[in-house]
Amino acid sequence: MNWLLLCRMLGLLAMLVGGSMVFSLPWAFPEFGQTTEFEFHGFWGLISAIGVSLGVGGTLSFLGRKEHSTILRKEALAIVGLGWILAGLLGALPYLFSGTMRDAETPMSIPDAVFESVSGFTTTGASVLTELEDPTEIPRCIMFWRCFTNWLGGMGIIVLFVAILGQLGAAGKALMRREVPGPISESVRPRVREQAIVMWVIYVVLSAILVGILQLEGMTIYNALCHTFATMATGGFSTLNGSVGGFNSPLIEYTIIIFMIAAGTNFTLFYLVTLQRRNPLYGEGWWGRFKPLFSDVEFRAYLTIIFVATIILTMDLLWIEHYQSVLDAFRNASFQVVSIMTTTGFGTDDFDRWSEFSKGLLLLLMFVGGCAGSTGGGLKVIRFVLFAKIMRLEIEQAFRPNVVRPLRIAGVTLDNSLRHDVLVYFCLILTIYIGSWMLLAAIETDDQWRDTTLSVAEMADEHRPHRAEKLLDCASAVAATLNNIGPGVGVVGPTENYAGFSGAGKVLLTVCMLLGRLELFAILVLFVPSFWKAH
Amino acid sequence: MNWLLLCRMLGLLAMLVGGSMVFSLPWAFPEFGQTTEFEFHGFWGLISAIGVSLGVGGTLSFLGRKEHSTILRKEALAIVGLGWILAGLLGALPYLFSGTMRDAETPMSIPDAVFESVSGFTTTGASVLTELEDPTEIPRCIMFWRCFTNWLGGMGIIVLFVAILGQLGAAGKALMRREVPGPISESVRPRVREQAIVMWVIYVVLSAILVGILQLEGMTIYNALCHTFATMATGGFSTLNGSVGGFNSPLIEYTIIIFMIAAGTNFTLFYLVTLQRRNPLYGEGWWGRFKPLFSDVEFRAYLTIIFVATIILTMDLLWIEHYQSVLDAFRNASFQVVSIMTTTGFGTDDFDRWSEFSKGLLLLLMFVGGCAGSTGGGLKVIRFVLFAKIMRLEIEQAFRPNVVRPLRIAGVTLDNSLRHDVLVYFCLILTIYIGSWMLLAAIETDDQWRDTTLSVAEMADEHRPHRAEKLLDCASAVAATLNNIGPGVGVVGPTENYAGFSGAGKVLLTVCMLLGRLELFAILVLFVPSFWKAH
Repeated sequence: MNWLLLCRMLGLLAMLVGGSMVFSLPWAFPEFGQTTEFEFHGFWGLISAIGVSLGVGGTLSFLGRKEHSTILRKEALAIVGLGWILAGLLGALPYLFSGTMRDAETPMSIPDAVFESVSGFTTTGASVLTELEDPTEIPRCIMFWRCFTNWLGGMGIIVLFVAILGQLGAAGKALMRREVPGPISESVRPRVREQAIVMWVIYVVLSAILVGILQLEGMTIYNALCHTFATMATGGFSTLNGSVGGFNSPLIEYTIIIFMIAAGTNFTLFYLVTLQRRNPLYGEGWWGRFKPLFSDVEFRAYLTIIFVATIILTMDLLWIEHYQSVLDAFRNASFQVVSIMTTTGFGTDDFDRWSEFSKGLLLLLMFVGGCAGSTGGGLKVIRFVLFAKIMRLEIEQAFRPNVVRPLRIAGVTLDNSLRHDVLVYFCLILTIYIGSWMLLAAIETDDQWRDTTLSVAEMADEHRPHRAEKLLDCASAVAATLNNIGPGVGVVGPTENYAGFSGAGKVLLTVCMLLGRLELFAILVLFVPSFWKAH
Repeated sequence: MNWLLLCRMLGLLAMLVGGSMVFSLPWAFPEFGQTTEFEFHGFWGLISAIGVSLGVGGTLSFLGRKEHSTILRKEALAIVGLGWILAGLLGALPYLFSGTMRDAETPMSIPDAVFESVSGFTTTGASVLTELEDPTEIPRCIMFWRCFTNWLGGMGIIVLFVAILGQLGAAGKALMRREVPGPISESVRPRVREQAIVMWVIYVVLSAILVGILQLEGMTIYNALCHTFATMATGGFSTLNGSVGGFNSPLIEYTIIIFMIAAGTNFTLFYLVTLQRRNPLYGEGWWGRFKPLFSDVEFRAYLTIIFVATIILTMDLLWIEHYQSVLDAFRNASFQVVSIMTTTGFGTDDFDRWSEFSKGLLLLLMFVGGCAGSTGGGLKVIRFVLFAKIMRLEIEQAFRPNVVRPLRIAGVTLDNSLRHDVLVYFCLILTIYIGSWMLLAAIETDDQWRDTTLSVAEMADEHRPHRAEKLLDCASAVAATLNNIGPGVGVVGPTENYAGFSGAGKVLLTVCMLLGRLELFAILVLFVPSFWKAH
């Protein structure tokens, strides 16, 4: 392991994180909506966090200033894995230094702050904060930083790093490959820096459009920015206790649905549709322009799953008579399906009160996630498309052992190693999921689920969310963090938060978020002793 | 598809099943413990079932009497898959013809009887019967048939078929390969018929020893036989409502623990230890004799998992103060771990009242199962050993892409296709498990979990098994049937049964049992249209 190189790169990254905190400073001033004196705690908290980040970053990059060797695969893994951990730790400083309160009585502990920060960067959107709307508990500039971490993590801090720094050549590619999700890496531009810039430009332009629309629909600039960050990054942090449901506006909800779907789409497709010169193969006119989008196997599967799940959920909600009108049922079902499937995690209704079947369906959608190359988490739609094809081929192999068919997608034959990789990825996710679930169930005592404050009458009220489902709640907490969604069911349901977990439980869930965001390997290798040994 | 050949083989199999019903007849007579007039219903039920089975079998084999072509891979799959379905259907006839009662008021429906019969043959041990000890509801000869199906299915009806019929050559091998579980098929004898006979002889001898011991320990011959059938087959059907716990004898429990462990061991190892001429490699004396057993990687992993899980569970039970004495905790923990892990499903205590963590642990053990080539279900220990090795190699590959290490076990390098097969098997099981879980949650209404008969005070009693966990209960019901265990948690817990599920739900769980027992492919291919088309 080339330690000096590692120091230099991590140092630069730390400075980038520190620098990005500057954008949150204005919100501490009256001109931008400061209302209480407490906000200045936020200001000084941010200033100190910026100082520490730049200090740490400067020291690290000074140590490694003379090291300019090539970044190899091993170093790329280490830089991405450690870089994200470092960003998560530095991002926690503003919460700690500003004395942000978890609830009316408790200030945030170190695990709380790291959880919140990593949840932001990994676009999970899981929170330990109880009262979001009270600026005497959480200063508004800290709240802005919280949403801003979503946005930074969405397209990827490493991608931003490559876009700004450039001159990394093949190393930049190796770095980005670990951060941009999906089993196949595509490039639309020959140079890695251009590629990174193109991705960020699309991301910024889409975000700007959404900010404009949300303002037109009546949001303040502050809320429009914060919700745009969370939407485009599929993060899910909101500034309201009631999440997007707090605006109580179908217009805003449908706008956010459309932009969540966009955020879960492969950004390469936007490039093909808008920036690239038109491919004569696709023909003239509007259809020719949008053909790359709708002829994409993954995008079609993605829309199909959203559509089918929405229909099933709408019918289920009408069947159990949770909503009276079809429109209401459709509005909430579509919002929730898109929010969970794109791994955003916004809420408009407490789906913990829906039927058990619909909760199970949402739990499964958590694992699907967005498209490869999007800001969405989860396992990615393309992996499920490939998985389904592989399973069909394998069943046929059972009775036609001599007929070996290649794995094809959209007419292209895929490499056999990809077939293997997809299976390995599913198996690894399964192992980590089950391991973390058991560990979490072992760490947490059963007491959190035995709510002694409930009166007997309350326990008998069958419309209350059940409190007795520790195993299911733990399973949903791990699923919601590993796939970077945020809210789960039960104690981590849409109206609840992660504050109730123990410190050790929060650390475990923090690791799950990182594992999910970086698609396992960049974090897993850090635990392998032979990874750290010399070549 | 060679339909005539299929008819002939299925016909012979049907006659075998009909013939085996004869062994249950004696128990309808006073000399063997008949106590009520109702038992004669059982007698006539069995007689009619034998008649129908022989009739169906005779007709089918008459149709295909002239067909003697070789059994190819396709036909082998079809014979095993359809053969088990046919056996399950014929085995349900005694329940239906005798008018056996599901509970005091309801006679068994067709889905009930098929569920019970398939549960017997697949050695699942899941039951829809409520009152096992009342001979006015269930005649004792029918009860005997129920336990006898466990025993027939344990070593495999197809293996028995090959042992009796012989002269099938390579075809017999193809058939047995589909029935004897595990990823690698081993033969200790060159001829397939000899192999089948050796397996059955070991099975019969072990069973005879256990019957003797249980009788010495105070059981009646009837109970000793029934519990031996269920133990050696890892089936789990008992004649008592309280299962093995009903005897309240630590001696019997420890005896059954030892024989459950034996039943979950690869039967080839028993052959190597006892019948085969001693291998000079292993050296002289007692150690030389038992060396093949304890040098087997799978057997060692199997014992290790049992040991570690027992220790964890014992500590957890003492921690939550469910038992006061260490001995009691160890006795119940070890019994439950061995019973679940070997997929037997006997119970001595209602583990639904243990901690949530211990329930989760038992749920996971369900998937591990016994060794390959044993009578146990589940995924088999060897697959987990291979899985762990593959995952370790894959993580190393992430940072050492050019170092390709072979998969080795006990010094032997394994074929690359096996590596692929193991991953495919895990992925398929996962897909089927999740699909069935969702389907079951969709089929069953939430009402079964909203127990309206409970008083408010009962609902507040926190020691009562929770009734509000539909998703978890469905997950455990599918896990317990797919892995051929029997009891799960919640509504299918050790003190409950499967009677509450709807007819469609029972059919789904019946399919799960067959999928689990035949390791998926023999059943899955039956649903593929191209499987049925001409070559």
